[in-house]
Amino acid sequence: MKNMALTNLVLVRPDGGREAVLSDVAVARAAGGAALLEQAVIADSLAEAVGDCDWVAATSARSRSTPWPVQSPREFIDEIESEAGLTPRRIAIVFGREDSGLTNDELQLCNRHIMIPANPDYPVLNIAMAAQIMAYELYQMMLRWQPEESDAVAEAVPLASAADVEAVVSALTDLAVSTGFLDPAEPRQFGTHIRRLFRRAPVQRDETNLLRGLIKALQRKLP
Amino acid sequence: MKNMALTNLVLVRPDGGREAVLSDVAVARAAGGAALLEQAVIADSLAEAVGDCDWVAATSARSRSTPWPVQSPREFIDEIESEAGLTPRRIAIVFGREDSGLTNDELQLCNRHIMIPANPDYPVLNIAMAAQIMAYELYQMMLRWQPEESDAVAEAVPLASAADVEAVVSALTDLAVSTGFLDPAEPRQFGTHIRRLFRRAPVQRDETNLLRGLIKALQRKLP
Repeated sequence: MKNMALTNLVLVRPDGGREAVLSDVAVARAAGGAALLEQAVIADSLAEAVGDCDWVAATSARSRSTPWPVQSPREFIDEIESEAGLTPRRIAIVFGREDSGLTNDELQLCNRHIMIPANPDYPVLNIAMAAQIMAYELYQMMLRWQPEESDAVAEAVPLASAADVEAVVSALTDLAVSTGFLDPAEPRQFGTHIRRLFRRAPVQRDETNLLRGLIKALQRKLP
Repeated sequence: MKNMALTNLVLVRPDGGREAVLSDVAVARAAGGAALLEQAVIADSLAEAVGDCDWVAATSARSRSTPWPVQSPREFIDEIESEAGLTPRRIAIVFGREDSGLTNDELQLCNRHIMIPANPDYPVLNIAMAAQIMAYELYQMMLRWQPEESDAVAEAVPLASAADVEAVVSALTDLAVSTGFLDPAEPRQFGTHIRRLFRRAPVQRDETNLLRGLIKALQRKLP
């Protein structure tokens, strides 16, 4: 939760009560997220826990017989983002007991059931892993709410111009001919391949400079 | 890995060797995925580990000073899915040491660096969590592959392996030294630039073959 910037943890009747939640073992395992344990709310029932949320999703390892909308995490997020004007403000993600999951009554308190797509031969995700995946998906969504942050991208590197790249292609072709690697009567394919290679992704100017320097050094050394 | 249907685990010089990998503790922790430990390949170096892969991504917790393309997991997947006809077949996701991550030399063996977006105040993901997120993203991508699409993939152009690309980088470095363009006492930056250039986008096998042919022709002609 902490590494994905989530802050509201609600526990329903945890074994051992608040004492267990704040035990040395629990705090040690929480590492940098220990404050979340201290701030955790303890509820008597799932209904109480999610009472103030306007969109509640239960995570479930298996598909149920209940005719409830089952979504992948991505579909869950997509739906929230597409509900223009109906964007939920307080979303709860419900995780069941490690051993027995959620009861049918508990599942029915939820708007959606989320099933994390997994290997049909071994669809086993413990709660820590399921929670990390859901937290990750929610955080990716939150990042999209803050477009300003993408301005923090590193300053642009100067890119090679098309002419810079073409000069490299041309110099390599000359080299190929002067070494006898390439028959000047049929040079077409060589240039095509080299161009395709160098045009597949942006090339930086210092890279074309480097290649042209190397090619010049080679030309001086060639008989 | 098992719950997201991944099967190929390669470990680079693990502490304690294969014995530790197959220890009672490791097998117990692997639970239903213990067979992955038994089938794990142990490599002497990262270069060896990713040698037969055609697209290699390093996961990194912090942004580096090296000007390497850094992507979120989603951007990494989107780019793979958008490269029509150049879809990598063998993708490696590289995780560094739990304490110190990957060295700069190791990072340079990779086409992409992936940073999982996280809470700037606490961007702490242990390897288990980072691996689960990456496995989850890869499995969601695999689910989108329709049977029809895999027919198209079968006709895709053969890509150069990481080892093919490394051979070109190495041969170019030799050329640069033998022409006097490069001081062998300070070869570092040259390799960095060349690697970055050739690892920015998928390279086809006929392109590395072409370059190696040209380089061989040059070597024969050089005094």
